[in-house]
Amino acid sequence: MKKRNLYLKTISVEEALEKYKKVLETVIEVKWERIPVTESLNRVTRSAVYAKYCSPLFNSAAMDGIAVVTQRTKGASEVRPVELTEGEDYQVVDTGDPVSPPYDGVIMAEDLLETGKEGQVRIVEAAAPWQHIRPIGEDIVAGEMILPGHHKIRAIDVGVLLSAGITEIEVAVQPSVAIFPTGTEIIEPGETPVEGSIIESNSRMFENLAREQGARAKRFPVIPDDYEKIRRAVKEAAQKYDLVIINAGSSAGTEDYTVHVLRELGEVVVHGVAIKPGKPVILAVVDDCPVIGLPGYPVSAYIGFENFVIPVLSMLGDFTCRKNPVVDAVISKRLVSSLKHREYIRVKVGKVGEKLVAAPLARGAGAAMSMVRADGFCVIPQNSEGVEASETVSVELYRDIQEIENTLVVIGSHDLILDVMADLMPEVSRGMYLSSTHVGSMGGLMALKRREAHIAPVHLLDEDTGVYNQSYLKRIFKEPMALIRGVGRVQGLMVKKGNPMGICGIEDLKRCRYVNRQRGAGTRILLDYLLKKEQISPEEISGYDCEATTHMAVAAQVASGGADAGMGVFSAAKAMGLDFLPVGDESYDFALYQEDLELPLVKCFLQILKSERFHEKLRELGGYSWEEAGQIVRIDSRSMK
Amino acid sequence: MKKRNLYLKTISVEEALEKYKKVLETVIEVKWERIPVTESLNRVTRSAVYAKYCSPLFNSAAMDGIAVVTQRTKGASEVRPVELTEGEDYQVVDTGDPVSPPYDGVIMAEDLLETGKEGQVRIVEAAAPWQHIRPIGEDIVAGEMILPGHHKIRAIDVGVLLSAGITEIEVAVQPSVAIFPTGTEIIEPGETPVEGSIIESNSRMFENLAREQGARAKRFPVIPDDYEKIRRAVKEAAQKYDLVIINAGSSAGTEDYTVHVLRELGEVVVHGVAIKPGKPVILAVVDDCPVIGLPGYPVSAYIGFENFVIPVLSMLGDFTCRKNPVVDAVISKRLVSSLKHREYIRVKVGKVGEKLVAAPLARGAGAAMSMVRADGFCVIPQNSEGVEASETVSVELYRDIQEIENTLVVIGSHDLILDVMADLMPEVSRGMYLSSTHVGSMGGLMALKRREAHIAPVHLLDEDTGVYNQSYLKRIFKEPMALIRGVGRVQGLMVKKGNPMGICGIEDLKRCRYVNRQRGAGTRILLDYLLKKEQISPEEISGYDCEATTHMAVAAQVASGGADAGMGVFSAAKAMGLDFLPVGDESYDFALYQEDLELPLVKCFLQILKSERFHEKLRELGGYSWEEAGQIVRIDSRSMK
Repeated sequence: MKKRNLYLKTISVEEALEKYKKVLETVIEVKWERIPVTESLNRVTRSAVYAKYCSPLFNSAAMDGIAVVTQRTKGASEVRPVELTEGEDYQVVDTGDPVSPPYDGVIMAEDLLETGKEGQVRIVEAAAPWQHIRPIGEDIVAGEMILPGHHKIRAIDVGVLLSAGITEIEVAVQPSVAIFPTGTEIIEPGETPVEGSIIESNSRMFENLAREQGARAKRFPVIPDDYEKIRRAVKEAAQKYDLVIINAGSSAGTEDYTVHVLRELGEVVVHGVAIKPGKPVILAVVDDCPVIGLPGYPVSAYIGFENFVIPVLSMLGDFTCRKNPVVDAVISKRLVSSLKHREYIRVKVGKVGEKLVAAPLARGAGAAMSMVRADGFCVIPQNSEGVEASETVSVELYRDIQEIENTLVVIGSHDLILDVMADLMPEVSRGMYLSSTHVGSMGGLMALKRREAHIAPVHLLDEDTGVYNQSYLKRIFKEPMALIRGVGRVQGLMVKKGNPMGICGIEDLKRCRYVNRQRGAGTRILLDYLLKKEQISPEEISGYDCEATTHMAVAAQVASGGADAGMGVFSAAKAMGLDFLPVGDESYDFALYQEDLELPLVKCFLQILKSERFHEKLRELGGYSWEEAGQIVRIDSRSMK
Repeated sequence: MKKRNLYLKTISVEEALEKYKKVLETVIEVKWERIPVTESLNRVTRSAVYAKYCSPLFNSAAMDGIAVVTQRTKGASEVRPVELTEGEDYQVVDTGDPVSPPYDGVIMAEDLLETGKEGQVRIVEAAAPWQHIRPIGEDIVAGEMILPGHHKIRAIDVGVLLSAGITEIEVAVQPSVAIFPTGTEIIEPGETPVEGSIIESNSRMFENLAREQGARAKRFPVIPDDYEKIRRAVKEAAQKYDLVIINAGSSAGTEDYTVHVLRELGEVVVHGVAIKPGKPVILAVVDDCPVIGLPGYPVSAYIGFENFVIPVLSMLGDFTCRKNPVVDAVISKRLVSSLKHREYIRVKVGKVGEKLVAAPLARGAGAAMSMVRADGFCVIPQNSEGVEASETVSVELYRDIQEIENTLVVIGSHDLILDVMADLMPEVSRGMYLSSTHVGSMGGLMALKRREAHIAPVHLLDEDTGVYNQSYLKRIFKEPMALIRGVGRVQGLMVKKGNPMGICGIEDLKRCRYVNRQRGAGTRILLDYLLKKEQISPEEISGYDCEATTHMAVAAQVASGGADAGMGVFSAAKAMGLDFLPVGDESYDFALYQEDLELPLVKCFLQILKSERFHEKLRELGGYSWEEAGQIVRIDSRSMK
């Protein structure tokens, strides 16, 4: 077998960063440049900036009216008004106009009475010296410090700098970052993939993350797994750029050259950090340039970037790292983590009632989509074995808290229509969103019971009555519940186009490779029901333990040849070009507390269910009926007992 | 007199915005364009985006190791190992490599034993089907919705879109904004000002505020107050841009043409809003293009932009307004506000002990510098008459909360050295800041007493003992206090270069125009002490009631000829090129609680006081002595009684 790399002993994130920073402090320094103030938004000042001019530049009128010689106004009253003559006693001024001797006060236009004569006014109250005058330098005094050093310039700072006569400013040069995607199997976006291809996307994520921090990023074309080519690219970039990122090849695979290249060219300070996902990070220095190797899995890559690249960028660009806001949330299920590493768990966050709830998503390092679905990360420290359900945890949000608070939290059974509804939500009601998490029907009802979801989509067959959903609600909840009628849908067996295995029914599953749904999913309950009816034991089905969590994932597995059959809804089979053998119709409804029917988010949800646009989408997807969509069935368990 | 505008009846912010939006909804619409995904950061999706490919694209190895035919591994155990042959029973795979039939599971490299023969391995545990395989579509299934419509694209979204085979995306066109500064007295930054000049800076603030929201902004050269020129510019821009901003001329001055121009060209929907600062806002429509007139005072301009321009931009660009975070803070003093308007009060926010404290700054609409000094706004609603001291208020922050929490809060007497120290703070200790608010020595001690400041700079003369500061601390505090020795400084009378009035001492103030400091300022107490000594009554001093709040503001007033004399420190006189007549030396020290001496922020402060760099700056400023700077005097009032 080919040689694999051995990891250095993994160290904690803090240790790794401290060790790396100590080395970098001796080799890197912030560069500075003079730029026009008008282009300086978000740049960082080198040193304190002092005003060149006062603002206002002169004593000036703070009101529209007349500038007066205040002494001439003495004694004016209702009984004894004083008449003033323009050019002698006063001069008309608008706000901001200069007021200079002999004038030493301003009377507001509103307080002037007409005398009937041009160039004359009457007043009934004396003016005090300095009245309604903005003194020179009231706002900014020449020589005064406007901004300190190491300050990030905001839009308002730009205005004040210009007012104070500053037109150029010395700021930190934006650090330049070279990004090298590597890997023989990697193809560029837009190329047609073949088996084995992986579409390169991490470098584009890096590029944009770097830009968000204020760095300039240059992404290079993919380099194949070729020691010499990687060596040459890194060597050259280390001369020209402030920071070099190599992705990936930082792991211990047979073709992971990065660490060898970096050992040859410079110093590898850290290889491997106690962080999950993200362990195979390399922190190195080549010719006084920081070079960071990040792992290939998208989630690992993101976490590596956040923890190591951003701190280095902040050293290079003299800025404070822009951090995501952190909120407290109740975790919706128990999370076990190892003492060996700090773990980042992606979570969906929702506001149900008064509490923020964080629902953990897929933990795999490859699950990039879970990052998109997630609203943030819950961090489990290295010295913790995990958290219990309902414990309060800190969540680092990367979605706007206002958006989160205006999101309908839907947890339960999966159907493609949830995506359609999520898409329609902000169209129907601007600023409202829907987020769905797929944990199966029973999982959804449990989340509802813990008040961690607004709505649980369910399709649970009562084997005794043949009626869907209602009996489950009665059994599980004491509170007055409601069922919003959703759609009728056809469940069936999905098989390859043309049905090459000649599958006709449940019985035939015994002779093929099946792909199942996870425990608690309504579709799995349906399979179990059908197996029981046919007196087939699960052991007889090859692949019964191979689980997928959505209809589409099952369909994809069948389409790819990884399995011969799976159960799911017609729309998924249609989307994947599969043949479909119906096994029955079912009701896919939405459970919730009656009291929540009045929530604006729920009202918007109801509106969508009844809308023509939604029905149009259902027609396109195929396999649905919607005669009762949006009808409300109230279920009061006490009255039913 | 020339004609002035009359305001329309002012209406509330909500009413104004609703009225305007209703009109705009009928005339504007979001424009869309297709762009490369790689350029789509922060852009807003038009509609839902569905995956083109699965990710992974195939069943793939989740680990480095070998892909095996799992059936051939059956029965393997420690006692009965199984030997596998490459090419027949297995194939070497790295993470991400495809696994296809006949291979149906992966064994990790760590679990393989060598047999000594090339192309052969030994295993001691059977592999289950699907073991360590990432199934096709595990992350993303083709046809699955990746992003909903109306979603702002993040860096991670870019990565996932590319992974899913999407390379182009339809997004909202970034709205284009034309910005017109107007005013005959307005000069461009960089031009040399004369009396009456105002340096144009608002348009640059607008430009950058618009960019922060994701709009494209074009700032035009200043237009003089000329009806026809303004009319032509607006008319033309309304054809080409999505939004036009005119600044200023929106008020009721004699040369405020904006509202007349807009009435001629289109419809003025709102003129005047119950908001302070910011009242003279104009919301209009010209040829189906929104045109907004904003007031000229920088603070009014900023508040008008936040409240009206940003919502319109969000309509045009289909995005959610990016809002500043809001925190709760204790207000440090009573604020009275009128029921007539919603008022925005700039506040400095600091964390002292466990509480966030908001200290109100200057309320004038012209005080742009107070926006720079401020950390955010405290909003007093239209239906409120104000808030009491120590009440909790909501503060909209525009400075990073992490920076605020790492800021030493200094409230009290003003001296130029505070600016110098603020500048040195982050240099001495990265990520630490100093903020100072100038309320005079007594004001500072009161803030300290209310635990709203870490440190109060003081120079308070005890008339009985002639000793500075210590007796005040003993009298006011019960707790163990400390005085950090600061600098000795010379106070004196500042007069125009050459001393044209021939001022020699306090007695001469009776025959000149004086500019005083505010009540509670140590410098004013010093004047009062000197007046008393000379048996001069304040009424004899013309300008005794004319107050400035800093040494530099006093100096600027004297320099501009607004006053003949003022009292202050030598450094201010030097900075403004004034003559200086010393009246005495004083001690400018720093009061704090003894328990706070251990705070890292205070330690950094002490380090600066003792540093050579700081002493170098004092030498440059002139008029200071620093022999005892940084020494600590502990004051325990109980032991002193």
